[in-house]
Amino acid sequence: MSRKRLQKSADAPATVRTVAALAGVSIASASRVLNGIGGSTETVRRVREAAARVGYVPNAIARSLQARRTGLLALAVADIGNPVYVEMMRAIEEVAKRADYQLLVHATGADPEGETALLEGLARRYVDGMILSPLRIGDGHLTALGRSPVPVTVVGQLPDDAPFDNVRADSHGGVLLAIEHLADTGRKRIAFVNGAPDTLPGAARMTAYRAALTAVGLPYEEELVEIGDFQYAQGRAAAARLLARARPDAIFCANDLIAAGALHELLAGGLRVPQDVALVGMDDTALAEMSFPQISSVSLGAAERGRLAADLMLSRLENPQLAPRRETVAPTLTVRASSEVTL
Amino acid sequence: MSRKRLQKSADAPATVRTVAALAGVSIASASRVLNGIGGSTETVRRVREAAARVGYVPNAIARSLQARRTGLLALAVADIGNPVYVEMMRAIEEVAKRADYQLLVHATGADPEGETALLEGLARRYVDGMILSPLRIGDGHLTALGRSPVPVTVVGQLPDDAPFDNVRADSHGGVLLAIEHLADTGRKRIAFVNGAPDTLPGAARMTAYRAALTAVGLPYEEELVEIGDFQYAQGRAAAARLLARARPDAIFCANDLIAAGALHELLAGGLRVPQDVALVGMDDTALAEMSFPQISSVSLGAAERGRLAADLMLSRLENPQLAPRRETVAPTLTVRASSEVTL
Repeated sequence: MSRKRLQKSADAPATVRTVAALAGVSIASASRVLNGIGGSTETVRRVREAAARVGYVPNAIARSLQARRTGLLALAVADIGNPVYVEMMRAIEEVAKRADYQLLVHATGADPEGETALLEGLARRYVDGMILSPLRIGDGHLTALGRSPVPVTVVGQLPDDAPFDNVRADSHGGVLLAIEHLADTGRKRIAFVNGAPDTLPGAARMTAYRAALTAVGLPYEEELVEIGDFQYAQGRAAAARLLARARPDAIFCANDLIAAGALHELLAGGLRVPQDVALVGMDDTALAEMSFPQISSVSLGAAERGRLAADLMLSRLENPQLAPRRETVAPTLTVRASSEVTL
Repeated sequence: MSRKRLQKSADAPATVRTVAALAGVSIASASRVLNGIGGSTETVRRVREAAARVGYVPNAIARSLQARRTGLLALAVADIGNPVYVEMMRAIEEVAKRADYQLLVHATGADPEGETALLEGLARRYVDGMILSPLRIGDGHLTALGRSPVPVTVVGQLPDDAPFDNVRADSHGGVLLAIEHLADTGRKRIAFVNGAPDTLPGAARMTAYRAALTAVGLPYEEELVEIGDFQYAQGRAAAARLLARARPDAIFCANDLIAAGALHELLAGGLRVPQDVALVGMDDTALAEMSFPQISSVSLGAAERGRLAADLMLSRLENPQLAPRRETVAPTLTVRASSEVTL
């Protein structure tokens, strides 16, 4: 259509809403097409035809730029190298892609100030929404969440009264699965190698470990607890410290990276796994399966949490008036060679 | 400043170039600020002041939308879960972030049609440039690369005469490092477990393995070669087939996932690593270090390739007239417990 026609119809300005209604697509889809970000062939065709019919003009593009439907979702995770986040990221990407959203990934390095800055950056509306998985949640996060002009879904432990969409893992139930399994196979001295206890996962797993011991009728012994971080090297060093002073018959580790480090120390020390010491990790990543012996591990459903977070985000983008929702994903335990012998 | 003032100055239209010059920042930076995508506090301040002074108006925003500086770079890799790509992604993200670009990550699933579609999608200019790391490069890729209106940097083996920025690994040199090391430690029957030989890495590593054997004066024996894919499970199955029919004194694997699978089969079969069979992997990922025994591995410099690709992209965005450049990253070998015994 000619430039002249475009300018003529601009007197009765057509909005993206008009175009979307005429094309029979959502406002988000129409906006993505009009912003040149994409859509299915059929959507693009219908939106362009509708835009042509109502004389949607560049000024309207500028208007829609202010409304800023970007077709982008951000995912902010502590560490894009962590297999848990990779799983979560893949699941989110899959859901987002089906809804024609592109995923923009931020690695925050678990820095609370960086995370808060990211949330504050949402004021620029460079994305339509953000899925945030922080290791710690502080007051800074909550304030920034409250100010965000675009929806944020938090994957992690938000305070119960925080009015934001929230997907949680049940790490308490997951730890209980591991400890019950070890107790069921006759283990009496179940050690625990934790990550940093001042992180949400670290604090939750510590509390859960003590509660689980009580649940299975075993005493809590301080010498059986060691702390590293959630990485391999520190986990391995923590396991070395533990084994230098105590002789557990099982080790439960707060994630699979720590478990791989503990396995290394056990085997290097001439201990047989699982005959001498059984081993259970957490997160059930590919690493658990790729170790020898393969490591039993509790899954907190990272992929499922990602899928749910993306679903919550998409529903909210469709209907911003929804009440905040919270979903909790149930843990599962996969028993492998590292713990399958009963004493 | 008032709406009135804006409209008055619009008669002498100010472009993003005018604003950038007045603010003393690059056009890309000015564009990002004007599009609400971001910039440092100082940049934002200067650009906004300059925009106000020259009376940069929403029509100009629409114009800049046509010029489409998005402040986004895309990274398309076969598999965001592969540790090699994670390393590359981290390095690219770091460089991009310093230049104030956000990274948008696509997982292509190594599907050549999907990759071609992504390249064709660049016609929509939803990003300022793309870094693509395909497993195979076909004619479809080259045609789509030639048509792209935004720069694409390819990490991988482009044909020598392809006029695109290209960062290559030296897998040939990397394989030679591994085979020389194994030969130096007295190994005579060095097996090879490859990934899919119809991929660029698979084909290159196969050719390099034969050439390296010749270089160290060892014969090529067909029974010492097995093929899986580049994943753990298939690599492990391939190693099992190999060990069922032959008795190598060393196994070189085309990546660390395959090497972890081979290690599993060796240990499960009661073979000692490295006393009976030495093992060397490729890519030098965290997995090599997290295995027990730790696996020697050749690095093809994934992080360095990512950094270089991002650097090439940023230079080209600054100066689109540059001649196509090609960089090759040198391989390195890290010797660990899995091959440190000399026969």
